[in-house]
Amino acid sequence: MPADDNLDALLDLDTLHASLRHANVESMTFLNEVAQLFPDAVSFAAGRPCERYLSVEAVHRYIDLYRDHLAKELDGDLAKVHRTMLQYGRTKGIIDDLVAEHLAVDEAIHVDRESVVVTVGCQEALFLTLRALRRTERDVVLTVRPAYVGITGAALLTDMRLLSVADSPGGLDFDDLERVLREAREEGLRPRALYIVADFANPSGATLDLPSRYRLLELAEAYDFLVLEDNPYGFFTGDDEDGLPTLKSLDRSQRVVYLGSFGKTGVPGARVGYVVADQRIAVAEDQTELLADQLARLKSMLTVNTSPIGQAVIGGRLLEHNLSLRAATLRERQIYRENRRQVTEGLARRFPPGKGPEVTWNSPRGGFFLVLDVPFPVTDELLEHAGREHKVLFTPMHHFYGDGVPVPRMRLSASQLTADEIETGLDALARFIHEQVD
Amino acid sequence: MPADDNLDALLDLDTLHASLRHANVESMTFLNEVAQLFPDAVSFAAGRPCERYLSVEAVHRYIDLYRDHLAKELDGDLAKVHRTMLQYGRTKGIIDDLVAEHLAVDEAIHVDRESVVVTVGCQEALFLTLRALRRTERDVVLTVRPAYVGITGAALLTDMRLLSVADSPGGLDFDDLERVLREAREEGLRPRALYIVADFANPSGATLDLPSRYRLLELAEAYDFLVLEDNPYGFFTGDDEDGLPTLKSLDRSQRVVYLGSFGKTGVPGARVGYVVADQRIAVAEDQTELLADQLARLKSMLTVNTSPIGQAVIGGRLLEHNLSLRAATLRERQIYRENRRQVTEGLARRFPPGKGPEVTWNSPRGGFFLVLDVPFPVTDELLEHAGREHKVLFTPMHHFYGDGVPVPRMRLSASQLTADEIETGLDALARFIHEQVD
Repeated sequence: MPADDNLDALLDLDTLHASLRHANVESMTFLNEVAQLFPDAVSFAAGRPCERYLSVEAVHRYIDLYRDHLAKELDGDLAKVHRTMLQYGRTKGIIDDLVAEHLAVDEAIHVDRESVVVTVGCQEALFLTLRALRRTERDVVLTVRPAYVGITGAALLTDMRLLSVADSPGGLDFDDLERVLREAREEGLRPRALYIVADFANPSGATLDLPSRYRLLELAEAYDFLVLEDNPYGFFTGDDEDGLPTLKSLDRSQRVVYLGSFGKTGVPGARVGYVVADQRIAVAEDQTELLADQLARLKSMLTVNTSPIGQAVIGGRLLEHNLSLRAATLRERQIYRENRRQVTEGLARRFPPGKGPEVTWNSPRGGFFLVLDVPFPVTDELLEHAGREHKVLFTPMHHFYGDGVPVPRMRLSASQLTADEIETGLDALARFIHEQVD
Repeated sequence: MPADDNLDALLDLDTLHASLRHANVESMTFLNEVAQLFPDAVSFAAGRPCERYLSVEAVHRYIDLYRDHLAKELDGDLAKVHRTMLQYGRTKGIIDDLVAEHLAVDEAIHVDRESVVVTVGCQEALFLTLRALRRTERDVVLTVRPAYVGITGAALLTDMRLLSVADSPGGLDFDDLERVLREAREEGLRPRALYIVADFANPSGATLDLPSRYRLLELAEAYDFLVLEDNPYGFFTGDDEDGLPTLKSLDRSQRVVYLGSFGKTGVPGARVGYVVADQRIAVAEDQTELLADQLARLKSMLTVNTSPIGQAVIGGRLLEHNLSLRAATLRERQIYRENRRQVTEGLARRFPPGKGPEVTWNSPRGGFFLVLDVPFPVTDELLEHAGREHKVLFTPMHHFYGDGVPVPRMRLSASQLTADEIETGLDALARFIHEQVD
């Protein structure tokens, strides 16, 4: 937001935290601004959930459902119900029990409620986890490149160095992972964790296959690091396909910290996520605590507690669907599946192999994102041109590589679009691509 | 939370962030645990707002009031209303305009809505501000000692060194402040800001008088630092007394960053606070932005945005009372005033001067807290003893000094108690104190 420029500045940006000059921050700012500049464009850029079934009426209903549930739990003590839902509250949250039950129902993840910390979206969970693991400048976190902007942001905020591991169509290049781990140790660094979206990653759409999941867990033990499994899209497979088991459900040695979000499956505006951290921490010679307890202490200094009203909204939604978000998201999953099909089939019609520009894409069987490879570098200038002249938006992939060097790739998402918008948008996208190569 | 001790620990606490070993964190954990251990004790320890008028029904009403307001603003476009209230949203918030209007109505603070960032309680605002100002280890923040645990926590999370300034009955020892500023500079440090609760501070109850407010603003210019004014209790004067003007309302040179909370005046469970940061930041040779924009960028990496549902609750409450929280809190202010009177008069009856143990206290004309000076060090063991044997709780003041050395002082708050509870609690407190000195 450019401000009135004839006023004296009090401070210089170079005296503020270094993250504010980082490409990641400029990326987010730029992408937001472009979206605002071209509100009439069809946007394949946003990774937002379908909002067709969101309503304020449902919010009211969820809050009441949770209140009634709580009243039963508290033997009808309404003063306690009101205190729980409306006062300052427990740092770990008030729906930790429902979250744990939901994980058992939907994900075969069986954890004690004490291992759960309810957070302000998944992003706070990420920050807390990195903040805990970053003891000194030697502590580093790994992630695949291209990386989700949220992990880059959390690493920046905690001054934690982020090491990149090469991507592969299977989600992770294991040879490169081992190389990075070895070289980091030789440099005197401590790789504390690998961040991964194992199912339908943002931005690549890649999914880790089952043998790779086992292999990653073995490597985590062999090289003594944690796996930060972020799973916002795991449910969004087709109705006819089961997803793969989460890393956490395969974890037999406390290696996986599981990061969850209700932003895509619940109500984004509730801003509720969570972290499952059942790792044991030695706090004294003969005493252990949970990593979750440590994260809660950090949270008490950051946001104190997650809005219990927001938690009631999510709690009510969980209760309405017998703790199953798979059940709750039936209609949305149908839409996402249909939109994915429409985008990939629409691309195939518009870019037949061997004819016209050489354009290829992956076809993830779930999630929100796919990646389109095109025969020209996708710059920010081209995005603005596409928005202005062709009324279509996408995300240049260089924003996920962290160095600003344009790559010939773009990320597409149709999670929030109607069938008509997808057709209009693909037509515009095809015109834009033809214009670039012709 | 002690965990099952026969399981192997995966990590040692000493490999996690240093803040987890800090006295401040242990204080918060200990005080929470004691409160849970003695739920039947009268607690003068909690600094929570009165919850008599909180209700889930009011939450529903506020949400609808805000929805109707938004529908008018958006010309009846219900899809946009739902998107604003329920989707991922603007990082700076959706009630920034209402917050700015409320500040004009209640505090004579006149700022543009673009200077406001709505945060997850005031604590996130504190974190964001320190995160922005902590560029290198040379950047330090100042605060009076005894200090609010929230500023200590935010400094710990940002690895920012906190320098203590001596307290005074007027809230701040200016000679000591100048000494600390000079010595810090001689050491090569950059004092970036002074954190202060100018009205009815937590824990001391002290208020900065008007000449001191002007003097502080002058010093901020002379020594080039910002004033972080946190004002959760400013409204809670007696009905017959106006408060002093806030530092921000006196600020003519962008020196004050104003931190606000709706936790005490609105609905704590909405977890909504805000920061006003109208400072100009030079971002390029001929371009400035607002500090608020930088804080929003940091927020996009921390919590993305504050729950718009929580914001709707606060927005509705503001709308119901014509943007005046002074008007909205009439009944609560009456209760706080009455409780303060009852506590100080009750103490005077139980501890008459010249008879019995030498006990003195201050009598803040507003806010939640007063400090009791007693003739013995108030240790954590004594607190547990008081909870168990006398069924009364308070806060040993050493928790606000950061070094764990017991001091002969305790903090009392009666904000959440009934008249009967106050009498019972004061009787128990008197018995406990007599037991210690007799």
